[in-house]
Amino acid sequence: MANKATLLVFNNEFDRAFAAFRIAIAAAHSKMEVMMVFTLWGIDIVKKDGPLFRGKGFKSRMMNFMNRGGAKRLKLSRMHMGGMGKWMMEKMMKDKNIQPLSQLIADAKKLGVKFLICDVPLEMMGLTKDDLIDEVDNIVNVETYIQHMADSQINLFV
Amino acid sequence: MANKATLLVFNNEFDRAFAAFRIAIAAAHSKMEVMMVFTLWGIDIVKKDGPLFRGKGFKSRMMNFMNRGGAKRLKLSRMHMGGMGKWMMEKMMKDKNIQPLSQLIADAKKLGVKFLICDVPLEMMGLTKDDLIDEVDNIVNVETYIQHMADSQINLFV
Amino acid sequence: MANKATLLVFNNEFDRAFAAFRIAIAAAHSKMEVMMVFTLWGIDIVKKDGPLFRGKGFKSRMMNFMNRGGAKRLKLSRMHMGGMGKWMMEKMMKDKNIQPLSQLIADAKKLGVKFLICDVPLEMMGLTKDDLIDEVDNIVNVETYIQHMADSQINLFV
Repeated sequence: MANKATLLVFNNEFDRAFAAFRIAIAAAHSKMEVMMVFTLWGIDIVKKDGPLFRGKGFKSRMMNFMNRGGAKRLKLSRMHMGGMGKWMMEKMMKDKNIQPLSQLIADAKKLGVKFLICDVPLEMMGLTKDDLIDEVDNIVNVETYIQHMADSQINLFV
Repeated sequence: MANKATLLVFNNEFDRAFAAFRIAIAAAHSKMEVMMVFTLWGIDIVKKDGPLFRGKGFKSRMMNFMNRGGAKRLKLSRMHMGGMGKWMMEKMMKDKNIQPLSQLIADAKKLGVKFLICDVPLEMMGLTKDDLIDEVDNIVNVETYIQHMADSQINLFV
Repeated sequence: MANKATLLVFNNEFDRAFAAFRIAIAAAHSKMEVMMVFTLWGIDIVKKDGPLFRGKGFKSRMMNFMNRGGAKRLKLSRMHMGGMGKWMMEKMMKDKNIQPLSQLIADAKKLGVKFLICDVPLEMMGLTKDDLIDEVDNIVNVETYIQHMADSQINLFV
């Protein structure tokens, strides 16, 4: 079996994204081949810091407006309190010299972590590769990432 | 190792159920043997579209009333907004020719995906196999699905 | 490959904790070597039933106050309704002779399940091993539990 890890990133919360990237980076450090597959809400994490409205058609534009996305805008899965909880978590991370999410994304990329996007939810949201950050490697279908998972030692649905 | 995948479906949200079935179907298409194990809230997904009150005893009836379940009634994990978000997501799925959840359930079944139910939460909710859709294959204990997982190449907690 | 299971416990809800311990116990019963790695919010589950304020510095004390933790204080992930849902679930568990979470923690420990804590979130919250229940075996870094996962037959992100 290949020495491989596949992380299926389904959610868009700051804390879960943080966990996913920390795991991806540690696995890459351990010489594993790492795939992060962003699907549905997880796609928000790798959206470009772009315009308020995106996508074609009213529904896409509304959905993307409501989930503007981008690594800077993610919320906590709990204790959000109008941004207070996240502000506090980011401050505590800084106090302890823990890197911000944007830095984790850059580090993961540098270590060779592959960023894959699931095609159907991307198309459903009316988005294309142009709406995503440059770190994205490829848009894949579900059969492709099932093959990665069948070949991976570690598979997680985050 | 067997060419097998086990999906532990713990949640009852529409979007997570949708992801679980898409993965199950793709894995079955890739000639894997696929088990979906529905536990706790996930059992809602495979409840029959039945009466408002179900189960024996006041507490069971209340819990089943509050989680009426059935593939048609699942909510989104976020952006629900009184049904608007889900309506929009279903509409966008239709626009892009993505099949509804009821169709995914039927497709999974046709491809040989096994539908297993965890016994303790089912009993706790005061339900029996009669309250579940006909696609359900078996009611199993946790030891049984641990065995499936120990034998599976892909294990996900959805 | 070792006959091993690693459960990454990221969340602090009662129902998810319940599922995680039931799986850990069943896997240990099946003679698997089981690791539970508690990270971020999951650390709440293994906090001592201690004082209202904990940690050093204002932010840590606030965060720990808001997530007081301890196996008795966990909430349900849905249907919480001011404690009503959880009261009902605990009552239904009792009616069906299902053990409470504190008993599951003791049982898991007795069966040799290892309780590991992820170091960075623990430090971020300003906590030390002294704030955690005695059942905790070790504080580990992410690289260590990646190694456990790379060596495990079952890996789940709960």
